[in-house]
Amino acid sequence: MDDNAFARRRGVVAAGLSERKLDAFLAAFSPNLSYLSGFTGSNGSLLILPGKSILFTDPRYTIQAAQQAGTDSPPLQLRIARGPLVVEIAAAIARLRLKRIGYEPARMTCELHDALKSRLPLGASLRPVDGWIEGLRMLKSADEIERIRRSVRTNSRAFEEAVARVRVGMKERDLAAELEYRMRRLGAEKPAFETIVAGGVRSALPHAQPTSAPLKSGALVVVDMGAFEDGYASDMTRMLFLGSPGAKVKRTYRAVLEAQMAAVAAVRAGVPAHRVDRAARAVLKSHGLHRAFIHSTGHGLGLEIHEPPRIGKHEKIRLQAGMAITIEPGVYIEGWGGIRIEDTVVVTEKGCEILTPTSKDLRVI
Amino acid sequence: MDDNAFARRRGVVAAGLSERKLDAFLAAFSPNLSYLSGFTGSNGSLLILPGKSILFTDPRYTIQAAQQAGTDSPPLQLRIARGPLVVEIAAAIARLRLKRIGYEPARMTCELHDALKSRLPLGASLRPVDGWIEGLRMLKSADEIERIRRSVRTNSRAFEEAVARVRVGMKERDLAAELEYRMRRLGAEKPAFETIVAGGVRSALPHAQPTSAPLKSGALVVVDMGAFEDGYASDMTRMLFLGSPGAKVKRTYRAVLEAQMAAVAAVRAGVPAHRVDRAARAVLKSHGLHRAFIHSTGHGLGLEIHEPPRIGKHEKIRLQAGMAITIEPGVYIEGWGGIRIEDTVVVTEKGCEILTPTSKDLRVI
Repeated sequence: MDDNAFARRRGVVAAGLSERKLDAFLAAFSPNLSYLSGFTGSNGSLLILPGKSILFTDPRYTIQAAQQAGTDSPPLQLRIARGPLVVEIAAAIARLRLKRIGYEPARMTCELHDALKSRLPLGASLRPVDGWIEGLRMLKSADEIERIRRSVRTNSRAFEEAVARVRVGMKERDLAAELEYRMRRLGAEKPAFETIVAGGVRSALPHAQPTSAPLKSGALVVVDMGAFEDGYASDMTRMLFLGSPGAKVKRTYRAVLEAQMAAVAAVRAGVPAHRVDRAARAVLKSHGLHRAFIHSTGHGLGLEIHEPPRIGKHEKIRLQAGMAITIEPGVYIEGWGGIRIEDTVVVTEKGCEILTPTSKDLRVI
Repeated sequence: MDDNAFARRRGVVAAGLSERKLDAFLAAFSPNLSYLSGFTGSNGSLLILPGKSILFTDPRYTIQAAQQAGTDSPPLQLRIARGPLVVEIAAAIARLRLKRIGYEPARMTCELHDALKSRLPLGASLRPVDGWIEGLRMLKSADEIERIRRSVRTNSRAFEEAVARVRVGMKERDLAAELEYRMRRLGAEKPAFETIVAGGVRSALPHAQPTSAPLKSGALVVVDMGAFEDGYASDMTRMLFLGSPGAKVKRTYRAVLEAQMAAVAAVRAGVPAHRVDRAARAVLKSHGLHRAFIHSTGHGLGLEIHEPPRIGKHEKIRLQAGMAITIEPGVYIEGWGGIRIEDTVVVTEKGCEILTPTSKDLRVI
């Protein structure tokens, strides 16, 4: 990340405390913690107050926390807790005489909330703050977009390398393994989600898990894959066909492609998200396929594979330049199969940049 | 899973409602949901009441839910929600006139709790129930142990196949990719966690993420890996050494191995978990290494990679036959490196069965 990006982000939060009538803000949700500190351990909490921030973790992460969160200015203070982090956090709240501490209700369990609340000093209270950090995360910096771009490229290269090995009889699960292996060899840390490879009628399951079923001739195969590279996600769906596709496959594929391109064409800074969703839905309606489109058109991505904004039919949020989103309409017909086409794009003032370099043609093998 | 296992598990929960003064129990945490219904989608909730259970999910999972949860007797009722699940859940609670609904505070976010609470009919309330399902999950059935055994074997075979390709100069990340590729090709759905491959001084980070650093001659490499196969986890740590290990490496390795074997020897039904932890700690103390052992000796595993019981120094829970746990003491010396050795074992009346077939010798390459 660019120099001091984490400290700057914490500065934005610290500067926003007073208008939210808060003395401090507690981030415990891993992607938000990582966004604000660079720390990626599985157990950590960050307390941000004006002028300083404290990262709480346990002894397993002493070295990692010092490395990942250690070079900022102003520096992050580290507290290594021997027991539950809440005990240390409550002690810091008491010591610093903080009264109103913002927390993330959508990200904190009831148990953690109650454990912290019961340890707070008299007069201190937890105040729910919804989606603040997720709101900041929606707008990507140039550096973040560059990471997403690299992640997208790795993902697409892995797709090409693995698809070159697809044969009739290959197991869904082995193709998924090949895709994930390739993305890692090309520089990804890990898949951004469980790679979907689903052939034939199973392609009608939007979130199918790959099985040991062999890929069959004369069948559609959906491949939905993404990588995390340098912490940032990519997401792409492409369709394969083994053999020679019939009229219904071709017709349905063209309809979904038309819907996908209509949605991409609708993306621009200032446009409400629902308009992008409706662009896809309108095309599918003109083909009589709108009832088979059973999810939203897309979602934001970055440090998480799914993050705001959602591109759904009731989403009023206006797109802004620098948002990274997927565009992925699909149709799902039980007993026949499903078709989805998905790109990762970045919103610009005049439209969008499609990051995904992979051809959107049906890949006939 | 054996015939009707999910319905039987729900029956156990339904039978335990009255002693907990509950009319129903709501499971929304994915591993618990999967344990009680077989459903593995990312969005679902299960309401269990005497005589029937209702699974709530969204349209993306209509087909999958029917397949995964559809063959039980008594059958699971399916409700496909077009909007937020809480709306449908609250409506069902009202319709069925349920008053006291148990929920999982350690597994439910404040936001979901408050959204559900605000929609409950007059007189209905949410009651916290801690660790009930996790308690049931601790004791594995013969069928579950068989799945863990297969997962462990796949994991160990993947280790052997990948380690045969290790050379000086190979990147940590490429070895991790190779390990994960092999486990998938051998039948795993996915890694059970981010595979750890860390060489040299980075082996001192208990949860190191693999980097693009090359494996070096004269250095320790920690490999901590696990698979999910048929939904069940495995977990193993082994150490490699590239070149010829010096006296300190050999001495420290022997101490950790002695500690690991002492802990394994302490495992038996009826023994409190802390006694297993202390067996490892005592050995390391005799070598002056106890301060370098900065985590617990092990943890349960099954549908999650970390689940109860914890094998830690203050854990009073008594081991029972059928628990599957890891035994993994380690020492971490900043600036030098770390050594950890880990097996997956199943507790028996007389001791334990070590599932992990891989040799515990330091793997010199």
